[in-house]
Amino acid sequence: MSKWIQQWTMDAIGPRNLILTERPLPEIGPHDVLVRTTAVSLNYRDKLVLESGMGLDLTFPFVPASDLSGIVEAAGEAVTRFRPGDRVISTFAPGWFDGLRPGSGRTPAYATLGGVHPGVMSEYVAFPEDWFVAAPTSLDAAEASTLPCAGLTAWFALIEKGQLRPGDRVVVQGTGGVALFGLQIAKAAGAEVIVTSGSPEKLERALGLGADHGVNRLREDWVERVLALTGDHGADHILEIAGGAGLGQSLKAVAPDGRISVIGVFEGFEVSGPVAPLLLKSPVLQGISVGHRRALEDLVSAVDRIGLKPIIDKRYRFAELREALAHLDRGPFGKIVIEF
Amino acid sequence: MSKWIQQWTMDAIGPRNLILTERPLPEIGPHDVLVRTTAVSLNYRDKLVLESGMGLDLTFPFVPASDLSGIVEAAGEAVTRFRPGDRVISTFAPGWFDGLRPGSGRTPAYATLGGVHPGVMSEYVAFPEDWFVAAPTSLDAAEASTLPCAGLTAWFALIEKGQLRPGDRVVVQGTGGVALFGLQIAKAAGAEVIVTSGSPEKLERALGLGADHGVNRLREDWVERVLALTGDHGADHILEIAGGAGLGQSLKAVAPDGRISVIGVFEGFEVSGPVAPLLLKSPVLQGISVGHRRALEDLVSAVDRIGLKPIIDKRYRFAELREALAHLDRGPFGKIVIEF
Amino acid sequence: MSKWIQQWTMDAIGPRNLILTERPLPEIGPHDVLVRTTAVSLNYRDKLVLESGMGLDLTFPFVPASDLSGIVEAAGEAVTRFRPGDRVISTFAPGWFDGLRPGSGRTPAYATLGGVHPGVMSEYVAFPEDWFVAAPTSLDAAEASTLPCAGLTAWFALIEKGQLRPGDRVVVQGTGGVALFGLQIAKAAGAEVIVTSGSPEKLERALGLGADHGVNRLREDWVERVLALTGDHGADHILEIAGGAGLGQSLKAVAPDGRISVIGVFEGFEVSGPVAPLLLKSPVLQGISVGHRRALEDLVSAVDRIGLKPIIDKRYRFAELREALAHLDRGPFGKIVIEF
Amino acid sequence: MSKWIQQWTMDAIGPRNLILTERPLPEIGPHDVLVRTTAVSLNYRDKLVLESGMGLDLTFPFVPASDLSGIVEAAGEAVTRFRPGDRVISTFAPGWFDGLRPGSGRTPAYATLGGVHPGVMSEYVAFPEDWFVAAPTSLDAAEASTLPCAGLTAWFALIEKGQLRPGDRVVVQGTGGVALFGLQIAKAAGAEVIVTSGSPEKLERALGLGADHGVNRLREDWVERVLALTGDHGADHILEIAGGAGLGQSLKAVAPDGRISVIGVFEGFEVSGPVAPLLLKSPVLQGISVGHRRALEDLVSAVDRIGLKPIIDKRYRFAELREALAHLDRGPFGKIVIEF
Repeated sequence: MSKWIQQWTMDAIGPRNLILTERPLPEIGPHDVLVRTTAVSLNYRDKLVLESGMGLDLTFPFVPASDLSGIVEAAGEAVTRFRPGDRVISTFAPGWFDGLRPGSGRTPAYATLGGVHPGVMSEYVAFPEDWFVAAPTSLDAAEASTLPCAGLTAWFALIEKGQLRPGDRVVVQGTGGVALFGLQIAKAAGAEVIVTSGSPEKLERALGLGADHGVNRLREDWVERVLALTGDHGADHILEIAGGAGLGQSLKAVAPDGRISVIGVFEGFEVSGPVAPLLLKSPVLQGISVGHRRALEDLVSAVDRIGLKPIIDKRYRFAELREALAHLDRGPFGKIVIEF
Repeated sequence: MSKWIQQWTMDAIGPRNLILTERPLPEIGPHDVLVRTTAVSLNYRDKLVLESGMGLDLTFPFVPASDLSGIVEAAGEAVTRFRPGDRVISTFAPGWFDGLRPGSGRTPAYATLGGVHPGVMSEYVAFPEDWFVAAPTSLDAAEASTLPCAGLTAWFALIEKGQLRPGDRVVVQGTGGVALFGLQIAKAAGAEVIVTSGSPEKLERALGLGADHGVNRLREDWVERVLALTGDHGADHILEIAGGAGLGQSLKAVAPDGRISVIGVFEGFEVSGPVAPLLLKSPVLQGISVGHRRALEDLVSAVDRIGLKPIIDKRYRFAELREALAHLDRGPFGKIVIEF
Repeated sequence: MSKWIQQWTMDAIGPRNLILTERPLPEIGPHDVLVRTTAVSLNYRDKLVLESGMGLDLTFPFVPASDLSGIVEAAGEAVTRFRPGDRVISTFAPGWFDGLRPGSGRTPAYATLGGVHPGVMSEYVAFPEDWFVAAPTSLDAAEASTLPCAGLTAWFALIEKGQLRPGDRVVVQGTGGVALFGLQIAKAAGAEVIVTSGSPEKLERALGLGADHGVNRLREDWVERVLALTGDHGADHILEIAGGAGLGQSLKAVAPDGRISVIGVFEGFEVSGPVAPLLLKSPVLQGISVGHRRALEDLVSAVDRIGLKPIIDKRYRFAELREALAHLDRGPFGKIVIEF
Repeated sequence: MSKWIQQWTMDAIGPRNLILTERPLPEIGPHDVLVRTTAVSLNYRDKLVLESGMGLDLTFPFVPASDLSGIVEAAGEAVTRFRPGDRVISTFAPGWFDGLRPGSGRTPAYATLGGVHPGVMSEYVAFPEDWFVAAPTSLDAAEASTLPCAGLTAWFALIEKGQLRPGDRVVVQGTGGVALFGLQIAKAAGAEVIVTSGSPEKLERALGLGADHGVNRLREDWVERVLALTGDHGADHILEIAGGAGLGQSLKAVAPDGRISVIGVFEGFEVSGPVAPLLLKSPVLQGISVGHRRALEDLVSAVDRIGLKPIIDKRYRFAELREALAHLDRGPFGKIVIEF
């Protein structure tokens, strides 16, 4: 086990510091598993961490990215949940197993892979077994790697917290990774789905994935359109992905007793909106920041049962990380994945 | 039954139009009860309706106020829930019996007494029996009249929606009517209560009512104080009564998975706050606009069992409505009630 | 409006007392609608009421059956929710609009149509407007008539109370009216459905409707089969329709933190089961007795959105009530409906 | 650290095999803490395990009992949650941290201390740090030792699952350890509490602890009395501790939409009851088997805030285990604790 492995690392914040380096194969402790990476899914957050550090206490050399598919190559002596050969995916926020999130009001928990914890853009990782869950059997490695952050965020908002029901009317803002998972999960739960986007071509593709309605938010007032499409009822659940001042629009479009899940990158943003609909319609407004491991296991189980196939806009090779990040900047339709 | 009764009415918006008038005793239909008013509790909203109409479609001559205690004097032939002699209180939003609120995403329901429906500042009212619930047996008329709006709002936020638990840490902003009900209900549920106010004297009185801590928000950073008092945990539930930009502070003070209930008068207000704690702590933020009839019945039942006594800052006589409204302007400690 | 109408009535309990009679067209009060019946769906309960009265305080001449599709022919002057020409369906338990059920611990509410209230096996009925909801637009009259009792029972158990999620594993016992609605609703919510039956032919038909697995409970141990099919996980939700000692089996088959909805006719039955799985798996066990009007409205809305088509085993004509009741005795696959 | 410690052990099932033995001080691994025991609380389950093994796969020599108070003496190098000197209590079911319970439908989890895991009737234990939570600051060691099983069971039933509200009417069956915690927790949550017992003297003591009503179940029909005391409403929550056929009575006494928590020792028992109230009142019936670690932390936090003092019927010394077990047989009023 003295072989050398490749990984992408940075010695300082800034994309120009991102280089391909070598290190010895990591060693495992009694509770760890050694995982050979087979695919890594990128999130917009990864780009922000690369570019700004997002205020996180990073350790250098820093390995970016958080979402991995891999195969267990070796297991420490105290490991009970996995054996060599098992296909696994990573969890975004290790230590949050189920129920209430860790952290305090003063110091919210934000120890994630590719942030406070090391990242996964490496041929091998050696992490505690608790940081992984079994991969779905119905997805390939690239597809499975999209579940830990984007897939789980949509599932946590719509199902774990939102308890979506057949016939509910759901608005999904945009066609990025979380949005398309939102579309697919909402359809699987029997909901009617309205997708908003500024791109006619992306709306067309969203309709092809099962969206019931597409609304071009640049050409029409999406709030008015949602109210019209729902017979004035409004949206039972809105995946508010843009953040910021869009919340005011969502408060106008939501149904009484509805739900607005605020999702997204938050560096420097404010939410704001009028109080009147917040009071008179009494919606639940909740920020969603990924979710716990048990919910990821539920999602994996559901994916296998309902046949959900994550939408990957483009697959890149390990050496093409820069090109993949550039694609992220252009706003992909679904996910960008690196295959190893 | 041809006697004349007195009521306060307005022929146009504006407090100077408020006059004491006479009308014949109202007649009742088969589903109505005739109720002799014994007390009316005032809300800040009543003042706003008087002064601005709040954009509501009022019918003139308009009778103000929404919250009444009274005694059933006569019942229509189809009435089944009440008999003459029964002590009753009114419901703020007739037609919302239980479960989801009426109205649509486009047109939220806002048909309340002393607004779209007629008000109660009258010696007698004749309303459908469905608009009333039985008064608690342990309160006098003035105390009972404070339950339909202020009491129910606090109960709906903390108990019906908030499912408060013993040991939860609750922040109550201010010492107005809803705030003091929040304090009393939270204590009855076993919570630890922190009251914020700009008045040392009111904080002292709040401590006398059972508050565990008082924070002078003018002399210290209440967020920092709440974090310190809770060992960094933060507040499990915040009754956000001020509204507006205060929400940003509440997002900093709330515990992970906590709850912020936004309560208050909404004319022209915006809420705003930083996205980061909304995402990282994932609190539920929910506007609360009074509540349904079943919850009012639950509150009445609880009041009798737990011995809750509403806090009335001052009782006025029927002829003293103007003085009572002036007191509202000065910010009472608890409720202002008119006794008939 | 002096025309005569036909209806099935009984002067005493017992099927031999069931006869076709005539009466004048009923008159409507200010809050009533006159509805021309277009279809009536039968429930096994109707047969029990005919045969035994089920201990109910019936009024004679008694008109049986509870679930109707119809068209509003006239509306009283105070009616606001319907206009002549509207297609409606009845509610099973008038007066339960939303939230908690009416009645007390001593005297549970059981005032339903075709029981304490008059039935609907009549060419016209005149009932309060509150007793109806709008019919779905995507179903014919016969299909729509199956929603108020059988459809709502399955929906209330699985969705309103059970909050079913995609990927959940559901066991549906049998292939009667409630069971097939359970199958269809669970599939619409993304669940994996296992149907049990003693008939290979009915299992085959259930698979044709989308069931994932059929288990012949006469030829194999269904508990063992459910555990095997779910990889030992057990069933997240069991629609326990048989009642009685079957509960013990369901307790063995249910997953930890799962749910068993007990549905069925209850005359004289006991439930019983071992305590060990009740404690160690901590499932929720809940009796389900139809549901409230708001949930029926939700079901109607969902039916139109998800394209659910109720399964009608056979449609009979108005004059064929006796033949329809005989079919009920033989155990239909889905529902039996009378078309007018 | 070569000193010898004392513990109670058994080489075979049966109380006569229980002897006081010596062993070397246990060593700790990197994730373990060494805890010096200061008090152990006994549960009726401990007696059953001693006498019958309860079908568990015990390891001999077997150390009995599950609930400990202690002081951390040493911590492994990887331990992060505790330091030497910290006061701790044990968790009953290690590995269940929050949310859904571990285990499967086929094999429910039942790995508890003093069962599949080693017990705590020992001067020192060396367990993983994850098996402990911080002790409340307001209780002495003996009082704190009663929380992990009896206290948490009552809390989990009434608060975590039952979401008790002020004014709810709660029936607590008996005056044992779980029952008295139920009484105290329900009172802290603002409920009205009815205690049933066969002993007038114990009822008197329960009233002294705050019970609102005591019902002698041997001298009167407790169901009838509960209905009378609640004005026919019935009990919102029943702590069904006896188990078995008593469930039929609880189904008669429960309110519509109420809750029955089934608690107790389950060896060989069946529950049974009539279907009619289960359907018509639609209560939730749920077995409760202690609870997760997060709920124990909530209980600890609540105990310190609400000033709850566990009721200890008698404190015994370490050498008096046999006398303490004999007291358990006689049915204590609250808990029996061994002080070290």
